Amino acid sequence: MHTVPVGVLGASGYAGRELCALVAAHPQLTLAFAAADRRRGERVGVGPPYAAPLDLTFAAADDVRLGDAALVFSALPHGASAEWSARARAAGTRVVDLSSDLRPGHLSDATRATLGGAAVPYGLPELFRADLAGADVVANPGCYPTAILVALAPLARAGLLTGGVLVSVAAASGVTGAGNSPRADLLFGEVAEDFRAYGHAAGGDGAPAANVHRHLPEMRAALTALGADADLVFTPHLLPAARGILATITVPLPGGSDAPALARTLWRDAYAGEPFVEVADAAGPAAEPLPTLAAVRHRNVVRVAALPVAGVRRPALLVTAAIDNLVKGAAGQAVQNANLMLGLAEDAGLPR
Amino acid sequence: MHTVPVGVLGASGYAGRELCALVAAHPQLTLAFAAADRRRGERVGVGPPYAAPLDLTFAAADDVRLGDAALVFSALPHGASAEWSARARAAGTRVVDLSSDLRPGHLSDATRATLGGAAVPYGLPELFRADLAGADVVANPGCYPTAILVALAPLARAGLLTGGVLVSVAAASGVTGAGNSPRADLLFGEVAEDFRAYGHAAGGDGAPAANVHRHLPEMRAALTALGADADLVFTPHLLPAARGILATITVPLPGGSDAPALARTLWRDAYAGEPFVEVADAAGPAAEPLPTLAAVRHRNVVRVAALPVAGVRRPALLVTAAIDNLVKGAAGQAVQNANLMLGLAEDAGLPR
Amino acid sequence: MHTVPVGVLGASGYAGRELCALVAAHPQLTLAFAAADRRRGERVGVGPPYAAPLDLTFAAADDVRLGDAALVFSALPHGASAEWSARARAAGTRVVDLSSDLRPGHLSDATRATLGGAAVPYGLPELFRADLAGADVVANPGCYPTAILVALAPLARAGLLTGGVLVSVAAASGVTGAGNSPRADLLFGEVAEDFRAYGHAAGGDGAPAANVHRHLPEMRAALTALGADADLVFTPHLLPAARGILATITVPLPGGSDAPALARTLWRDAYAGEPFVEVADAAGPAAEPLPTLAAVRHRNVVRVAALPVAGVRRPALLVTAAIDNLVKGAAGQAVQNANLMLGLAEDAGLPR
Amino acid sequence: MHTVPVGVLGASGYAGRELCALVAAHPQLTLAFAAADRRRGERVGVGPPYAAPLDLTFAAADDVRLGDAALVFSALPHGASAEWSARARAAGTRVVDLSSDLRPGHLSDATRATLGGAAVPYGLPELFRADLAGADVVANPGCYPTAILVALAPLARAGLLTGGVLVSVAAASGVTGAGNSPRADLLFGEVAEDFRAYGHAAGGDGAPAANVHRHLPEMRAALTALGADADLVFTPHLLPAARGILATITVPLPGGSDAPALARTLWRDAYAGEPFVEVADAAGPAAEPLPTLAAVRHRNVVRVAALPVAGVRRPALLVTAAIDNLVKGAAGQAVQNANLMLGLAEDAGLPR
Repeated sequence: MHTVPVGVLGASGYAGRELCALVAAHPQLTLAFAAADRRRGERVGVGPPYAAPLDLTFAAADDVRLGDAALVFSALPHGASAEWSARARAAGTRVVDLSSDLRPGHLSDATRATLGGAAVPYGLPELFRADLAGADVVANPGCYPTAILVALAPLARAGLLTGGVLVSVAAASGVTGAGNSPRADLLFGEVAEDFRAYGHAAGGDGAPAANVHRHLPEMRAALTALGADADLVFTPHLLPAARGILATITVPLPGGSDAPALARTLWRDAYAGEPFVEVADAAGPAAEPLPTLAAVRHRNVVRVAALPVAGVRRPALLVTAAIDNLVKGAAGQAVQNANLMLGLAEDAGLPR
Repeated sequence: MHTVPVGVLGASGYAGRELCALVAAHPQLTLAFAAADRRRGERVGVGPPYAAPLDLTFAAADDVRLGDAALVFSALPHGASAEWSARARAAGTRVVDLSSDLRPGHLSDATRATLGGAAVPYGLPELFRADLAGADVVANPGCYPTAILVALAPLARAGLLTGGVLVSVAAASGVTGAGNSPRADLLFGEVAEDFRAYGHAAGGDGAPAANVHRHLPEMRAALTALGADADLVFTPHLLPAARGILATITVPLPGGSDAPALARTLWRDAYAGEPFVEVADAAGPAAEPLPTLAAVRHRNVVRVAALPVAGVRRPALLVTAAIDNLVKGAAGQAVQNANLMLGLAEDAGLPR
Repeated sequence: MHTVPVGVLGASGYAGRELCALVAAHPQLTLAFAAADRRRGERVGVGPPYAAPLDLTFAAADDVRLGDAALVFSALPHGASAEWSARARAAGTRVVDLSSDLRPGHLSDATRATLGGAAVPYGLPELFRADLAGADVVANPGCYPTAILVALAPLARAGLLTGGVLVSVAAASGVTGAGNSPRADLLFGEVAEDFRAYGHAAGGDGAPAANVHRHLPEMRAALTALGADADLVFTPHLLPAARGILATITVPLPGGSDAPALARTLWRDAYAGEPFVEVADAAGPAAEPLPTLAAVRHRNVVRVAALPVAGVRRPALLVTAAIDNLVKGAAGQAVQNANLMLGLAEDAGLPR
Repeated sequence: MHTVPVGVLGASGYAGRELCALVAAHPQLTLAFAAADRRRGERVGVGPPYAAPLDLTFAAADDVRLGDAALVFSALPHGASAEWSARARAAGTRVVDLSSDLRPGHLSDATRATLGGAAVPYGLPELFRADLAGADVVANPGCYPTAILVALAPLARAGLLTGGVLVSVAAASGVTGAGNSPRADLLFGEVAEDFRAYGHAAGGDGAPAANVHRHLPEMRAALTALGADADLVFTPHLLPAARGILATITVPLPGGSDAPALARTLWRDAYAGEPFVEVADAAGPAAEPLPTLAAVRHRNVVRVAALPVAGVRRPALLVTAAIDNLVKGAAGQAVQNANLMLGLAEDAGLPR
């Protein structure tokens, strides 16, 4: 079968490695190059659970010919990625950028100009699929936003996130979400048996710290695009686990809402036919378990569940969503986007 | 020095073992007996970090003379504990009951009658100390409620939890919170690399599940006692860690509240002088870290921090609290209560 | 393509689940039934990394028609498996038995009679492939023996394990090796942050315990079949990890042996062309890493390395081998055997 | 009570932090200074399980007055420590050096000259106590050697390690043994769910790697001092755990040895009365468990067990030993040595 050559920049990070592995196992893509400056000359070992080590060595980014690929995945760090995405576009290749550089809430006019000036679609196919088919550049969503937006979108589209309602999101991520550069606070001896909130910034002038996170502007922009008018309180936590994200979301509903009915039908209807969204059926005697990290590991899915909150006076919902941060939260979604951009089957080469 | 003999029922569970260890290291208590039916005859090994194995063997509960102790700690399972607490009272000993049986929201009139009929104080000294000095029976709080109530009490007492406001609590606990009876879902192979919400009950008649937990009635009753009028959404999670609880709480504030000012002073003022509450200073350039499991491990403290929520239109706070579920969340708090009941220094024998 | 129906007995244990997952992903096998008495009626969720949940429910073993399958995998417990293997043979199906019941050192004459009386080949294809093609019944090796025998076989076949030489094997396994029945000693709270040797039996009459393990007779029998005359000291350990085995083996060599030369060539030559054995090249400046659990996870391979021992007066080797205990150590190897028995490509459906 | 001022160099590493904590909890020592260049000005937070944060800040090593301390602990890195130990001696203070710089097999004549020229005793009190009382400088043993030498010494002193016998040691350590400097290979995402042997060096000129480790010369020198004539094969492994070491040792015995009798009595007799050695009684029906990491965590003990090897033709023993690498393997043993050097009770301030 005819295959499409693709390249990976930032190939030795966690997302980059996962990309190489997925491409290696993809029936219609081939890996033209894998660039990772620090590991130049080492063999690309894509590893389990996808494939045996590849017959390919890491190249320096400056040494690869971007034009050898029909599409380039950039898994370079935030801040460094946009420039390479622009270079790849200049070389005539399509681009999926996994950094935050091109995402809503982050993309500057100057950066957009380097990419040709057009809007950069946000690569969350379940919510914005129409923008992605045949696109030249796509901003791959952040891991937390993928889980949280899939969980909230049905409410937003149903007009239930209105009036500046305060939506509380506590989310926890495995440590691969923080990359594999050496950091003392991510050593096994520091992370094991611990659990911590992070992402708060020290306030100036004696003001206390406030919670912020790179993913907040992205989520706010996407929620607005979905028609929501909500205030988001987002608190990420670091789990003593390697991979996976679980988001636990409390959503107050407009007075008179029938929370059990919404929980029973809204998500199921919204995602009927979506290959990569699983709605856990929390109703009835044979209730399925809520989303867990184990249920989504190594899979390109969002598993979501909604259940009504008991014992409160005004209607509210508890929505949870789980993803593998390196698959649906990064590399898997990037391949899903690439499939759409290249006109392949959307689920080609993706583990469910 | 004269020492007070105390006994432990349910001594081979996680809380019971921690109790034996704390009593063994306590300068004014001695362990008169340690009852654990299933391990009768085995040596009580209190273990690290507190002390070497004891020169004492587990007894069957039926074989101990409750009256040999001046105070009995019951760490028996929920449902089984109340009866033994009543027996201990009948034998003339004081009782700290670590189960939910005697707690607000759970204590039945029938059970209270077996204990003499009087109200059973709730043993959270930082909030209800006046009820505990010299008490004969005390209901030791649940682990989650300890962390969450210490976090919320300053707001409640300041009159800021009003009008049925929806307070969202996502909390995560290490697996020792679930005890050490054999359970397939708590095997290492099931818990490692996973993270899950739990505590939701299947709804009847096709209704979706709703979140409930044994600790909810207890927290609601205590919040009412503190003057709060709030709706609590409480979602517990199971961590791949052995011990520790972290609660992350979003609190909408009344319009016009000065969230940064509250975060800067309210908790610090409320807990000034409390030996077992640490308020992390999240203000200014040298901001301390938020509460973490590592910071409280093996210590009888609640570590709490409040910080204002950024980027929302109405004022709100993010409050986090961490405890060691087996120390301040169970055995350490039980000893703290025993100290108060017996007229000892409140911090005697307690690791800070 | 025409596919072969196979069945799994003991399908809800860790090995059984892995078998269902591998069969579901196998291009030439279909899952005719999955029997698990305790979970009768529940959906078979084969899960990641292999496939989405299946459209199949667990059946009680008594309710399945064994003859519906051309081959049955029995992942039943030791002691219970042989009887079901005999029933399956009586129903005319081929059998791969994953328990110890039919293995060398364990198979009784009475049991062999129930299977037709012929020898039962030992299903370690890399060492005994000739016995397996077209076989009707195969004893699937234990997890530890798979790693250890692949590591030692080249030495044995080269005549270097002679004269009752004492070979020391320290091996460590993830907890899935102990199954998923509820056991207090395998709870997360007991296994995390611990590491222990196990498998020693208490001596009688005041004698100290001695190290024994179910896998010892199996390894001794297989080593004898390979021409070795060695004494094996085997000490298994329990790792705070879910899956994987690493064996670390010290082998004294006959006087005059050239240990570096052996390390450089013996394993590479012995396993040239084997798809499921990886010999880590520990020679030269670009030395590969020794075997690790991470390198073999979810893969049907043994990764082995040999290196000479430094600073000793008589020649010796250090040989290490890693496998995924549930894949090459159980379900993957079982499928490899089934492929050979059914005349399929040996590597069909197996993750490398 | 009169207390002795001591100082810690390298106070922010894992061993340094443990030292600060132990000194803070020691009834007769006070912490005069804690030097850690990278964290100068930060508060010394000694943390659980020993004590609350201290009212002391880290100083730069160049800024402390070494002479303010009666004894200095140097927990500086190997290679950098000897110079500071010499400076401390020149300032008139006693020194416990926790690095390998002053240990047997490592101490150079040039370094010894900077310390005054005398022999530097090896601080393993259970084996070399007579050298330590009142000493001015002591080399604190490595973590692995502490466990392994305590396990082997009774055999050595009984004359049973002779004729160049090959003793095989497989040992596993928690990651804190590797320090808390940022390293990519020690990130949680790399260590969790893995297990690997390490400490082998690449061979030159195409020769395969050979196993070596900094602790080998130290162990060989100490074994010689104990009268042994043995070849040691030492293979360290990295555990997915924070702290603890378990060593598993196979020892062939001279022909005619009565292995069960030795296992029953040799260690028990050798360590009778030692407060910091626990000999697990592996004999009889109520056999105690073998040493485990959990049994020694946060304790200054070596837990050791010996049991005869079953099913071999020549007598052999399996000896296992467990320590907490940061306590008996580093900081606790350093305090034990300091106690001896200063004429305090040997067990003062040490957790058992």
